[in-house]
Amino acid sequence: MYDVAQVRKDFPILSRQVNGKPLVYLDNGASAQKPQVVIDAVTQAYSMEYANVHRGLHYLSNLATEKYEAVRGIVKRFLNAGSEDEIIFNSGTTEAINLVSYAWAAPRLQAGDEIVLSIMEHHANIVPWHFLRERQGVVLKWVECDAKGDLDPQAVIDAIGPRTRLVAVTHMSNVLGTVVDVAAICRGARDKGVPVLVDGSQAAVHMPVDVQAIGCDFYAITGHKLYGPSGSGAVYVRAERQAEMRPFIGGGDMIREVGREAITWNDPPMKFEAGTPSIVSQTAMGVALDYMMGLGMENIAAHERRLRDYARSRLAGLNWLNVQGNSESKGAIFSFTLAGQAHAHDISTILDKRGIAVRAGTHCAMPLMEHMGVGATCRASFGLYNTVEEVDALVSALELANELFNG
Amino acid sequence: MYDVAQVRKDFPILSRQVNGKPLVYLDNGASAQKPQVVIDAVTQAYSMEYANVHRGLHYLSNLATEKYEAVRGIVKRFLNAGSEDEIIFNSGTTEAINLVSYAWAAPRLQAGDEIVLSIMEHHANIVPWHFLRERQGVVLKWVECDAKGDLDPQAVIDAIGPRTRLVAVTHMSNVLGTVVDVAAICRGARDKGVPVLVDGSQAAVHMPVDVQAIGCDFYAITGHKLYGPSGSGAVYVRAERQAEMRPFIGGGDMIREVGREAITWNDPPMKFEAGTPSIVSQTAMGVALDYMMGLGMENIAAHERRLRDYARSRLAGLNWLNVQGNSESKGAIFSFTLAGQAHAHDISTILDKRGIAVRAGTHCAMPLMEHMGVGATCRASFGLYNTVEEVDALVSALELANELFNG
Repeated sequence: MYDVAQVRKDFPILSRQVNGKPLVYLDNGASAQKPQVVIDAVTQAYSMEYANVHRGLHYLSNLATEKYEAVRGIVKRFLNAGSEDEIIFNSGTTEAINLVSYAWAAPRLQAGDEIVLSIMEHHANIVPWHFLRERQGVVLKWVECDAKGDLDPQAVIDAIGPRTRLVAVTHMSNVLGTVVDVAAICRGARDKGVPVLVDGSQAAVHMPVDVQAIGCDFYAITGHKLYGPSGSGAVYVRAERQAEMRPFIGGGDMIREVGREAITWNDPPMKFEAGTPSIVSQTAMGVALDYMMGLGMENIAAHERRLRDYARSRLAGLNWLNVQGNSESKGAIFSFTLAGQAHAHDISTILDKRGIAVRAGTHCAMPLMEHMGVGATCRASFGLYNTVEEVDALVSALELANELFNG
Repeated sequence: MYDVAQVRKDFPILSRQVNGKPLVYLDNGASAQKPQVVIDAVTQAYSMEYANVHRGLHYLSNLATEKYEAVRGIVKRFLNAGSEDEIIFNSGTTEAINLVSYAWAAPRLQAGDEIVLSIMEHHANIVPWHFLRERQGVVLKWVECDAKGDLDPQAVIDAIGPRTRLVAVTHMSNVLGTVVDVAAICRGARDKGVPVLVDGSQAAVHMPVDVQAIGCDFYAITGHKLYGPSGSGAVYVRAERQAEMRPFIGGGDMIREVGREAITWNDPPMKFEAGTPSIVSQTAMGVALDYMMGLGMENIAAHERRLRDYARSRLAGLNWLNVQGNSESKGAIFSFTLAGQAHAHDISTILDKRGIAVRAGTHCAMPLMEHMGVGATCRASFGLYNTVEEVDALVSALELANELFNG
């Protein structure tokens, strides 16, 4: 039995007030709060166990290295990767997708080659491909979602032509909450010999992920959304793809020998990890993933389905509220606008006065916003510590906002 | 009066033991320990003040953004930059130099164009230039240091030819401790119209830095060496150079508008900062820099000069010890080998048994090691909390090691 009241006690910030009201944190799509075990891991590392990793032989360096490198195994379990060597550490999904763009795609793609992506990608999974369009004439092929916010896997597969070199698609929309059938996309793409990158920034927070079952080539996750520290992250890269990649960031640790006129590289995954990493953040990301797996990814998913169903039915009762995206597969992320003249920013300000943290804007997904024909939305995004009472608080604050603007 | 005993109380880890002995931490060149104010800033942020920055309008997001953005002003003061907009945040010097390589140099340099660098650069200031050599035929021109480890500024200036497009040079060698007269190099390079990148990873830890007085175009610092958290950092980039740079990492925040076939960029410095940054690490790096400036950079430098002078004279008394680098300008970094068959790694292991943390290896500076004709050295690198008693502890442990190996 998932005891959300007990879970909430693990997160110190959830006991604080904002503007005189208990904090209702519904901005998990942007970043998640941290459990005490993660905070303690950071404090303990800096207070008693800190040193640089890999290059030392002294006690603290060995200790820090051991804890840091153990996270590779934790991420492997979290994603069910085949090998620890397929886990590359980084600062999150943005760096991960830039790695794929610079290290794998840039040296391989020619002018006229295509990348297929969906209209609901986050900018992190758009801008690195725009670089290739601008700099080397790569063509971006966009696949639309339907009115409910669903992305038909077959439409993505059908968009793959003879010049397509990569499919880049989100596992879960950060705006609509739509969960995409990436396994079906990967099967179709594999039949056509085209690799698939999956942006798992949102999905991995809310459901069990199995990269082998999905069959993707690249799967990116972001530590700070996974209840871990700022600046932590990892990307799964299938071994065959790693073998095709040149280095991206150059510096210490990723080399074997550096001469004046010649240089050789370390083996993957180190080949793709340059310089001193975010040692403590990365180590504590491992603690965060262990915390999630301790609660059980299926249990978290089931809890959030209950939140989604409850929020969906309550928000559906507000006939002055337009919710974007109503896929059957939808997770507990709700973007919406109010009827009438109320701007998303004004709504979020009113909610904030009631202690409710939501986001307003284009959510780093401008092509999707344009596709939906909205300028900006409010977004309430739920996490493992949210409750049905918080859904009620959201609805009641929205009713107040509607009264103020349209009453 | 600089009270090192008082300063040491600010660093909780310094009260711990290693292998049954009080920790003598002399691995500051690799990474520095953290004062309690920095640890507290991290804990407070994650426990009570955490949210994503820039894109929110709710209370916690505004609070986090305010604290995060205030660090730009702190770094500006720390480096005496002309404007906050010349401070670009990143994960440290490795990312900084890759930014310059990818965003400024790669689109500008042609085959046969030259980059001048010194033989004593860290791999972080070598590998990104090797990328340009391998990928687009750029020529690396190396300037040697002399037997004392001094780098003649005029030799660097003389190496600048008509095809030279950039000088990339360290402000302080991480192996020899040599402080380079980068202001003289910048004057000479400016006369020839060539920009200068200065790797300030080590120097900024040990002395006041004034980028306007130096006259450089790029100056990189690393938070974790500056008593700040893992994965924090910044680079000063002169406004004229920023204007010449295309984006490097693509993602959220660094764009203005993202369409299907077109994209526009945010203004600098945001143009060069993609995705969710290392919010908490970066905020706490500001606390670390404030802590240093509170002690006084001149006071820190004076304290470390005393350590250097004492260590220099004590180590000079060991006639079986070969210290690499003896520049007059040298900081408190000592690399050495033992006469006879003792390997650097074995020496560091013996020191570790006495609680003394030093580094052994090639220190991410293989061209310098080759130039000096040594395979590996031990390195004792001092910081603001080290003491003359710790120098004595080092000497006594080295005497033990010599006895074991050569006795």
